[in-house]
Amino acid sequence: MPLLNADVHASRRDHLRGPISEVADGLLVVDPSDLRYLTGFTGSNGALFLSAVGADGDIFSTDGRYTEQAARQSPDLGILVSRTCLEAVTDQCISQGSARMAIDGRLTTGEISRIESRGLSTVLIDGLVAEARMVKDPGEIAATEEACAITSGAVVALASQLRIGDTEIAIARRLEQLFGEFGAEDRAFPTIVATGANSAHPHHEPSAQAVRSGDLLVIDSGARVRGYHSDMTRTFIVGEPSGWQLEIYAAVAAAATAGRSAVRPGISLADLDAAARQVIERSGFGDQFGHGLGHGIGLEIHEAPMIGPRSEGRLAAETLITVEPGVYLPGRGGVRIEDSLLVTANGHRSLTSAPRDLLVVG
Amino acid sequence: MPLLNADVHASRRDHLRGPISEVADGLLVVDPSDLRYLTGFTGSNGALFLSAVGADGDIFSTDGRYTEQAARQSPDLGILVSRTCLEAVTDQCISQGSARMAIDGRLTTGEISRIESRGLSTVLIDGLVAEARMVKDPGEIAATEEACAITSGAVVALASQLRIGDTEIAIARRLEQLFGEFGAEDRAFPTIVATGANSAHPHHEPSAQAVRSGDLLVIDSGARVRGYHSDMTRTFIVGEPSGWQLEIYAAVAAAATAGRSAVRPGISLADLDAAARQVIERSGFGDQFGHGLGHGIGLEIHEAPMIGPRSEGRLAAETLITVEPGVYLPGRGGVRIEDSLLVTANGHRSLTSAPRDLLVVG
Repeated sequence: MPLLNADVHASRRDHLRGPISEVADGLLVVDPSDLRYLTGFTGSNGALFLSAVGADGDIFSTDGRYTEQAARQSPDLGILVSRTCLEAVTDQCISQGSARMAIDGRLTTGEISRIESRGLSTVLIDGLVAEARMVKDPGEIAATEEACAITSGAVVALASQLRIGDTEIAIARRLEQLFGEFGAEDRAFPTIVATGANSAHPHHEPSAQAVRSGDLLVIDSGARVRGYHSDMTRTFIVGEPSGWQLEIYAAVAAAATAGRSAVRPGISLADLDAAARQVIERSGFGDQFGHGLGHGIGLEIHEAPMIGPRSEGRLAAETLITVEPGVYLPGRGGVRIEDSLLVTANGHRSLTSAPRDLLVVG
Repeated sequence: MPLLNADVHASRRDHLRGPISEVADGLLVVDPSDLRYLTGFTGSNGALFLSAVGADGDIFSTDGRYTEQAARQSPDLGILVSRTCLEAVTDQCISQGSARMAIDGRLTTGEISRIESRGLSTVLIDGLVAEARMVKDPGEIAATEEACAITSGAVVALASQLRIGDTEIAIARRLEQLFGEFGAEDRAFPTIVATGANSAHPHHEPSAQAVRSGDLLVIDSGARVRGYHSDMTRTFIVGEPSGWQLEIYAAVAAAATAGRSAVRPGISLADLDAAARQVIERSGFGDQFGHGLGHGIGLEIHEAPMIGPRSEGRLAAETLITVEPGVYLPGRGGVRIEDSLLVTANGHRSLTSAPRDLLVVG
C-alpha cells in the first residue's frame, strides 16, 4: 500500500513553490489540515512558511506539546518550538531576507495584524492548497477506501442490532465503538442518529429520544483512517413502513442513483446537483430538499468541491466526493441516502457499499 | 434547575448593545459558539447582526438545513433562510440603514471582503463576546457540573474495567460509550488515551497500541452536557509502579494540589501558573512541563482565560477553568492530573471528583 511518507509531503511542497513565487517569497500555512497535507504533522497548532525558492527556505514551528511528535512526523523539517508559532515563523522569515508573505482568505484579521506588525507585508492568494488537495494521490485514495469499507461494515453490523427503545445517543456511541473494532482511528465527525420526526432535521444531534415503531431512522456517519474521512448515510424503517415513507424513500433512492450515475470527470458541479435534484423535483418534493447534493472529502469532512445548484467549476478525476440527496417533511420525518465516491478516469466508483434498499429494523 | 431559555439569550444580547453602540451600528457574529451563547441556535452555520440600538434591529440568518431547528431554538428571532448567510445579513443591514458593522479578530479576510464589497464598512472590536462568555451564569454552571459528574463517574467505572491488552482506541470508545450511558450528549473532545511511551505526548491520539504491564496510562477526557464541556485527566499505573514513575507522579500530584489551592478571584493568571510550575521546577522536572497550566471551559473546550507563564489579566469569580500540570519524559512516559474548577467568591470548588491518588489497574 502506498505510504504517506516524508517524500510525499516534500513533493507536495515542491509542487506549490512555482505558483507561490509569482506573488511572494513564500506562503504561510496555519490551517491544521493544510499543515498535515504539506508536512505530515497532525497536531492542532503549528505554522509553516512554504518558501517560494526551495526546501532550504521552509520554516516550521509548533509549541512544546508537540516537540517530539513533530520531529517524528516531519523528520525532513527543522522544528522551531515556540508558544507563538506565527510570530516565530514571521521573525525567522524576516531574518532570512523575506519581505512578502502570501496568505489565504481563511487567515483571520487578528493573525494578519500579528504578522504585519512585525514588518512583513502580506498578499492574498486564495485556494492554492485547497485546489492541490482536491485531486487525491494513491495513498489518500487507499486510506479513504479503507475508511469507507469500515463504515459500510460497521453500519451493516449495527443494523442487525438495532432495537425499538434504543436511544439515538446509545446507537451513535455503539456505532463509533464498532468503527474502532473494525480498525478506524476515530469517527470522521459526530455521528448523526435521528429517529421519527427528528429525521426531518438534516443535521440533528443525537438525543435521549428512543426509537419507536413506525419511525424513519437516519444514520449519517463515517470512520476516519490515517486522517482521511468517509461519509455515508442510510435510512431505515422501524417496523411496518407507511405509504408516505415509502414514497419519499423511493424519490430519494431514485435521486441518489441518478446523482451517482452522473458522476464523471468534466461534468459541471451544478449539472451534477441538477441530475439528482430534478428527480426529487419531479416527484413533487423539490422544496423539501434544502441542501446541496454533496461535497468533497479528504483530510476534512467538508472540503472542495462543494456540489450545489450555484456551484461553479467542473468535477476532476481522482476527486473524492459525496452524493447525498434527501427529502425532509417537518414534524413527520426525512430520508437521506449518501455515498462516498471516487471520480475515476471514465466515471466513478462508490467506496461505500452498505445496501441501499429500504431496510426494516427493530 | 435554571434553564437556558430564550430570555437568557435575549438578555445576553441586550448586555452587549451598549459597548457595541460606542463604535458601530451593530456587531456581526458568525462563530458557532458565540452564536449559541447569544441565540440558543446550535447549528454549524449562521450569522447574527446584533444591533447596537435594540432587539428590533437584530438580524439572524442560517441555511435551509436548519430552518426548523432555528425556529425552535431561537423563537424570539426572525430567521432569514439563505445559502449565503453573511451576504443575506449584510444586505438586510444596509436596507435597514446601518453603515458600520463591528467585527472581531477571528473573522477571516475572505469574510470581511464579502461584507465590504456590498458597501458596509467594518470596524474591529476584539474579544467582546469572549469576555462576556468568560463569567458564567447559574444555568451554565449547572450544565458544567453535570458534565463533570458524568466524566468523574464514567472514568471511575472505566478504571475498574481496564485490562492489559486493551488498545488505546478501544478504551477511548468504551469511555465515550459510558459517557452516553451516564447521560452525556457527546464527548467534549476526542478522548486521549496514551499508554507507555505514548503518554509522553500531551496530545497523543489513541492508536492500536495495547496496554502493557509497567505502563503509565494517561486518560484525558470529558463529557458534554447541553453544550457545556468538562475536562479531566487521570494517570494510572499498569501493574507494579517503578521508582521513576512514582517520582514524577508525586511531583505532578503536588503541583496539581498547589495549583488548585491557588485558585481564587483576583489572582493573576501568571501567578496561578507559577504556583503549580514552581513545584515541578523544584522537583527538577521544569523542562518536562511544556504547556500552560490550564484554560477556560464553557461552550468550547478551550476558551478564555488561557493560564500560562505569559498570560495577562486576573482570574474572575464564576469562571470555569482547568488546572492540569504534567511531566513528560520522552521515550518513557508521562503523567498529567487535571481537574475542572469553578472559581467561587472566596476560592474554588473542584467539579471533577475522581480520586487523584495513584491507582494501579490491569
